[in-house]
Amino acid sequence: MNIKPLFDRVIIKPEQDQTLSKSGIILPETSQDRPQIGVVVAVGDGTTFEGEQTDMKVKVGDKVVFNKYIGNEIKIDNETHVILRQIDIIGVVND
Amino acid sequence: MNIKPLFDRVIIKPEQDQTLSKSGIILPETSQDRPQIGVVVAVGDGTTFEGEQTDMKVKVGDKVVFNKYIGNEIKIDNETHVILRQIDIIGVVND
Amino acid sequence: MNIKPLFDRVIIKPEQDQTLSKSGIILPETSQDRPQIGVVVAVGDGTTFEGEQTDMKVKVGDKVVFNKYIGNEIKIDNETHVILRQIDIIGVVND
Amino acid sequence: MNIKPLFDRVIIKPEQDQTLSKSGIILPETSQDRPQIGVVVAVGDGTTFEGEQTDMKVKVGDKVVFNKYIGNEIKIDNETHVILRQIDIIGVVND
Amino acid sequence: MNIKPLFDRVIIKPEQDQTLSKSGIILPETSQDRPQIGVVVAVGDGTTFEGEQTDMKVKVGDKVVFNKYIGNEIKIDNETHVILRQIDIIGVVND
Amino acid sequence: MNIKPLFDRVIIKPEQDQTLSKSGIILPETSQDRPQIGVVVAVGDGTTFEGEQTDMKVKVGDKVVFNKYIGNEIKIDNETHVILRQIDIIGVVND
Amino acid sequence: MNIKPLFDRVIIKPEQDQTLSKSGIILPETSQDRPQIGVVVAVGDGTTFEGEQTDMKVKVGDKVVFNKYIGNEIKIDNETHVILRQIDIIGVVND
Repeated sequence: MNIKPLFDRVIIKPEQDQTLSKSGIILPETSQDRPQIGVVVAVGDGTTFEGEQTDMKVKVGDKVVFNKYIGNEIKIDNETHVILRQIDIIGVVND
Repeated sequence: MNIKPLFDRVIIKPEQDQTLSKSGIILPETSQDRPQIGVVVAVGDGTTFEGEQTDMKVKVGDKVVFNKYIGNEIKIDNETHVILRQIDIIGVVND
Repeated sequence: MNIKPLFDRVIIKPEQDQTLSKSGIILPETSQDRPQIGVVVAVGDGTTFEGEQTDMKVKVGDKVVFNKYIGNEIKIDNETHVILRQIDIIGVVND
Repeated sequence: MNIKPLFDRVIIKPEQDQTLSKSGIILPETSQDRPQIGVVVAVGDGTTFEGEQTDMKVKVGDKVVFNKYIGNEIKIDNETHVILRQIDIIGVVND
Repeated sequence: MNIKPLFDRVIIKPEQDQTLSKSGIILPETSQDRPQIGVVVAVGDGTTFEGEQTDMKVKVGDKVVFNKYIGNEIKIDNETHVILRQIDIIGVVND
Repeated sequence: MNIKPLFDRVIIKPEQDQTLSKSGIILPETSQDRPQIGVVVAVGDGTTFEGEQTDMKVKVGDKVVFNKYIGNEIKIDNETHVILRQIDIIGVVND
Repeated sequence: MNIKPLFDRVIIKPEQDQTLSKSGIILPETSQDRPQIGVVVAVGDGTTFEGEQTDMKVKVGDKVVFNKYIGNEIKIDNETHVILRQIDIIGVVND
C-alpha cells in the first residue's frame, strides 16, 4: 500500500459482492444508512484526533462492516478505496 | 455469530412479536420514538468512542429495549439485525 | 418491575391526576415545556453516558416532576411508562 | 416547600412587581431576553449535570435575577414558579 | 451596586459616548458585531459555568470593550446596564 | 496601545497592501475564506477561554495571516483594527 | 518558506497532477469530498487548539492527501497553497 493513513484512520477496499455466503451476511441496498463490507488495506498509528493513543483493533486483511457515507474516497490502482476513522468501523466479519 | 462489533457496540436481533406477555410489556407502534424489543447476539469489548474502557452491561441472550431509529441495520442469515452502541440500549427485560 | 434501566436511566409511571392536593402542586396543561408528575418504578445503576459513576438520587416510589417530552414511552401492563435519564428529573415531590 | 429540586436546580417564585424601588432596579418588559426578578424558594444539593459537586451560591429567600425563558414552569399553591439551574441565575439582588 | 453577579459574570454600564478622545478609540455604529465601550460596575466571584475557579481580570471602574449583543440588559436607577460573562469582554481600555 | 486584550486575544492592524513583495505572498481578494495580512499591536496574557494558561506565540510587531471574518472590528486613531483569539491567527510571516 | 504556521497547522502546495503514476493513486474530480494531493512546505510546532502538545507526523517534503475544502488558501510566489490543521491531512503518500 502506498498511502499511510494518519492518526486512527484506516483504508478499506470495499467488496464488489456485498453478500458473504459463508457467514450469511447480506448488506441490503435499501438500508437507509448503507453499511458496507470491505477489506482493511492500511491502518494508522492509533493516535486519535483528541490526542489520545488507542489500540488499532483492526489489521490489514480484516473484513469489516462500515458506513458507506463516512470517510474519503480515493482511487488506488484504478479501484475505489475509502479512508475513515477506526471508530466508524462497525464490526469485524469472520467469513 | 460471524460479526464482532467494535468498541461498545452491540448486535441485536429484533423480536417479531413486540408484546411480551409474561412481563406485560408492549411497545406500541404509535410511539413517536419507537422503542423496540430484541435479543443481544454479540457484544464489543467495551471501549467507548472517547477512549474509555467501560463494562458491558448486556450479554449475549439478554432481551433488551432499544431505539428503533438508532444504529445500523444489517442482514444475517436473511434476518434483519441492528448494530448500536450500548448506551443506546434503554433497558434489559426480564420476561 | 420487569425492565432494568441501563446507566442512569429511571422508569417513571406518570400520574393520571396532575394535581397534588396535599402539596398544592399543579402542572398546568398549558405550560409550554409540559413538566409532568409521576412515580419512579425502577432505577439504573448510576453509570452516566460519559462513563462516570454517580449517585442515584431517586428511588422506587419517589414522586417526581419530569419533562413530558424527554425519554422513551413504553407500555407495561397496559399502562404508559417513561424511561429517561436521572438528570432529566427536575425535582422530587413530598406530597 | 414540597418539591426538592435535583442537582444544581433552584426553584424561584417570580415577583409580581418587576420594579425594585429601593435598589432602583427595573426589568423592562421590552428587553429582548426578558430577565426577571424572583425569590428563591428551594435549592438542590449542588451536583452539576456533569457530575461535579459545586457550591450553591443562592439560598432560600434570596432575591435573584434570572432569564424568563429558561427552565420549567410549575404551579405551587396556585402560583407560578420556575425551576432552573443555578448557572442560569444572573445575579443576586440586595434590595 | 445592588446586584451581585453570579459566577464569572460582570455588570457593565455602557458609555453614552462611544468615542474615547484621549485613547483615540472609536467604536463605529456600522460595525457588524457592534463592540461597545462601558464601565465595570460589579464583578462575580470568578467561578466559571464549568466549575473552575478563575481570576477576575477586570475590576469595578475598568473601562472595557464588549460585544453589544451578548448578555442580559437590566435597568438600574433608570439606566441600562449589561450583565455578561468575563470571557465576553474583549479588552480593557486605558483612556 | 490603549487597549489591553483579555485572555488569549490579540489586536491586529490589517495591512493596506495585501501583497508582500519580499516574501512573495499575495492574499487574493477572490479567496472564499478571505485570509488577510496584518501587524500585531497588542497581546493578551494567554489565558484561554477554557481556563488554561498558554504561550502567546505572537508578539507586538509580528506580521501575521488571519481570517478576515473572525473577531471584532474597532477603530483606533481612525484606523480599523481587529481583535481575535490567537488560535485564529493562521501563521506568522517573515517578510 | 516565509510563513511559519501556528499551532498544529501545515502549509501544503497542491500538486498540478492529481494522478500519481508510480503509486497508482488517482483522486477523481467527481469525488464528493474532493480529497487532493499536495506537498508539505511548512509545519507548525504541534500545539493543538485545545492546548495539548502533539507530534507533527508530517514533515516538509511529504506528499500528502488532504480535503480540498478544509483550510485557508494563500498565494505564495504566485502559486496557491493551503494552510490546514494536521488532523485534516488524511494520509502520507509514498510515491
